[in-house]
Amino acid sequence: MAEASRTSEARRDAVFGRWVIFSPARSRRPTDLKSHGPANPGPADGNAPKPSCPFCLGRESECAPEIFRVPAPDASSPWRIRVIENLFPALRRDVEPPPPPEEEGEKEPVGAGECAVRGFGFHDVVIETPRHDVRLWDLDAEGVGDVLLAYARRVRQLAEHPAVKYVQVFKNHGASAGASMAHSHSQMIGTPFVPPSVTSRLNCMKEVFERSGKCSLCELQCKDILVSETQNFSAIVPFAASYPFEIWIIPQEHSSFFHEIDQDKVLDLGSLLKNILEKLCKQLNDPPFNYMIHSAPFGLSSSCMPYTHWFLQIVPQLSVTGGFEMGSGCYINPVFPEDAAKILREIDCSI
Amino acid sequence: MAEASRTSEARRDAVFGRWVIFSPARSRRPTDLKSHGPANPGPADGNAPKPSCPFCLGRESECAPEIFRVPAPDASSPWRIRVIENLFPALRRDVEPPPPPEEEGEKEPVGAGECAVRGFGFHDVVIETPRHDVRLWDLDAEGVGDVLLAYARRVRQLAEHPAVKYVQVFKNHGASAGASMAHSHSQMIGTPFVPPSVTSRLNCMKEVFERSGKCSLCELQCKDILVSETQNFSAIVPFAASYPFEIWIIPQEHSSFFHEIDQDKVLDLGSLLKNILEKLCKQLNDPPFNYMIHSAPFGLSSSCMPYTHWFLQIVPQLSVTGGFEMGSGCYINPVFPEDAAKILREIDCSI
Repeated sequence: MAEASRTSEARRDAVFGRWVIFSPARSRRPTDLKSHGPANPGPADGNAPKPSCPFCLGRESECAPEIFRVPAPDASSPWRIRVIENLFPALRRDVEPPPPPEEEGEKEPVGAGECAVRGFGFHDVVIETPRHDVRLWDLDAEGVGDVLLAYARRVRQLAEHPAVKYVQVFKNHGASAGASMAHSHSQMIGTPFVPPSVTSRLNCMKEVFERSGKCSLCELQCKDILVSETQNFSAIVPFAASYPFEIWIIPQEHSSFFHEIDQDKVLDLGSLLKNILEKLCKQLNDPPFNYMIHSAPFGLSSSCMPYTHWFLQIVPQLSVTGGFEMGSGCYINPVFPEDAAKILREIDCSI
Repeated sequence: MAEASRTSEARRDAVFGRWVIFSPARSRRPTDLKSHGPANPGPADGNAPKPSCPFCLGRESECAPEIFRVPAPDASSPWRIRVIENLFPALRRDVEPPPPPEEEGEKEPVGAGECAVRGFGFHDVVIETPRHDVRLWDLDAEGVGDVLLAYARRVRQLAEHPAVKYVQVFKNHGASAGASMAHSHSQMIGTPFVPPSVTSRLNCMKEVFERSGKCSLCELQCKDILVSETQNFSAIVPFAASYPFEIWIIPQEHSSFFHEIDQDKVLDLGSLLKNILEKLCKQLNDPPFNYMIHSAPFGLSSSCMPYTHWFLQIVPQLSVTGGFEMGSGCYINPVFPEDAAKILREIDCSI
């Protein structure tokens, strides 16, 4: 769409089936969207533990119970990563799980079509480093890879529970992106239902597969929208990105489940994730961001495998979502993906 | 669910089919969520035109073209409401509309399942008052009713265009809710496609109708969640509210299209909308908010009429949306709807 695309264009993607309006008139230059200030303005001595931070080394007893820890590669610290329970969980592991679908009649009947179930589920926290004010991308590639490996290990544990249908892995960086703690951490929530976005993503990818015989993500045309790539992964600004400078990191080989990732690939993914987060921080002034891993629900039937392909979505917080987006589910993005990709491609960051 | 509901609970609603997690542990009391400061901190002399505001009386020539104006009831001002084009439209009325569906082959072919169309559409602004820093709910009920009538009139005009499939009417109040102008205004965007949330809302309501023979909104159990009502409308905190203190204003009589509202009902709706916005302002410290009108797409087949029922959704901005919500489409709400409704019911506001 080269020149014509400099005026507005609406695009629909092949993964979520979402319509996005690209409207460059609404910001003068793509880089006008830089964050106004760093997500976590740090103290002068960034490595010192903060007196009130329970995620820091030596304050483990103030946290909710530990699930497992990953030891440091040397004797410098008693741990490198800790996976713990969330002290204020959205869902609780100590209530009875909802009955399986065949007994759904037991659910509280409310109005026509409404339903309510007990708030059963798991809500865990991954403390990515014992050091306060070390950001995820300050770790080396192996350190980032170990964080991803800790996610995968905990997801595999949760997959064993018969009532857990899906685990949403996510990271909130910066208070305005939803992080209540500045110390670098991620979270995961295991739900007793398949969340709505997962269902609609699978339905959309199924439709594409039935029409074209192809997996939406295997068939991606990367040329203009590629940011970086490694042996096993590509980082792109998706063709119909909902948000400015949104990035997807996609395994090149077809794979439905993130948690089946192996040691070799996780190191490769760690180096690419570090590279991309460095690029966002350098180019967009350390913006608040969220990232989410989009995997397949547990117990997926084998007929769905050919069109489910996991990926990691990174969304820097650069624009405000208003009533149009909230009402219609359709996003307005002032930056064309090709422009965002070019800008991010050009910044030099180690990989 | 009375007592048990004070621990976590997951609910699915009958309109969007969304799962929402109610997790009161994550805020101590519902009113902890009050806004930290007013959405639009105003100057001392609120009525004076602001030198730089093009929406103020006397500065009409600085705006994009006017579509129509509503005269003031007396000679005090040359106009009461103006409907104008948006100077920075997300979609443009001056490009060629996309071809009708039977010629869809003409769309730009991209990857499997992706598509792109020209950014055709309408993006209009409704200036609700000539006076700067008069808020919508400072108008009398008739004044609010006239704003709603202006929406309906403009939607009817846009419905005449064969390429416009839906019009999303919305209001952003406060910069953090997406308002780029402090002067009280609303917007509407007419799209050449049916937006994704509209499709999923219709699908969900259809499913409920096919199962129960009932319209999700006609069958609503209002007892514990009612905030206010008038002869023709009910204001409730929905059973599975995605956001704390979210409110829906619903016509009691089944009706698919907002824009078919008549003069009598619009006055009634105006008084209820004024009442609810006053309640939110008083109880939650004038929070930024969005409201959206959820209507049916144009050209809806008559077989869909029995289950489509328009309503107005108000979402005060009191919490941050993070990676879990963005990734899963499932919301965490720290305030049970019954508690929010009780709090809002108890504040005294004129109706």
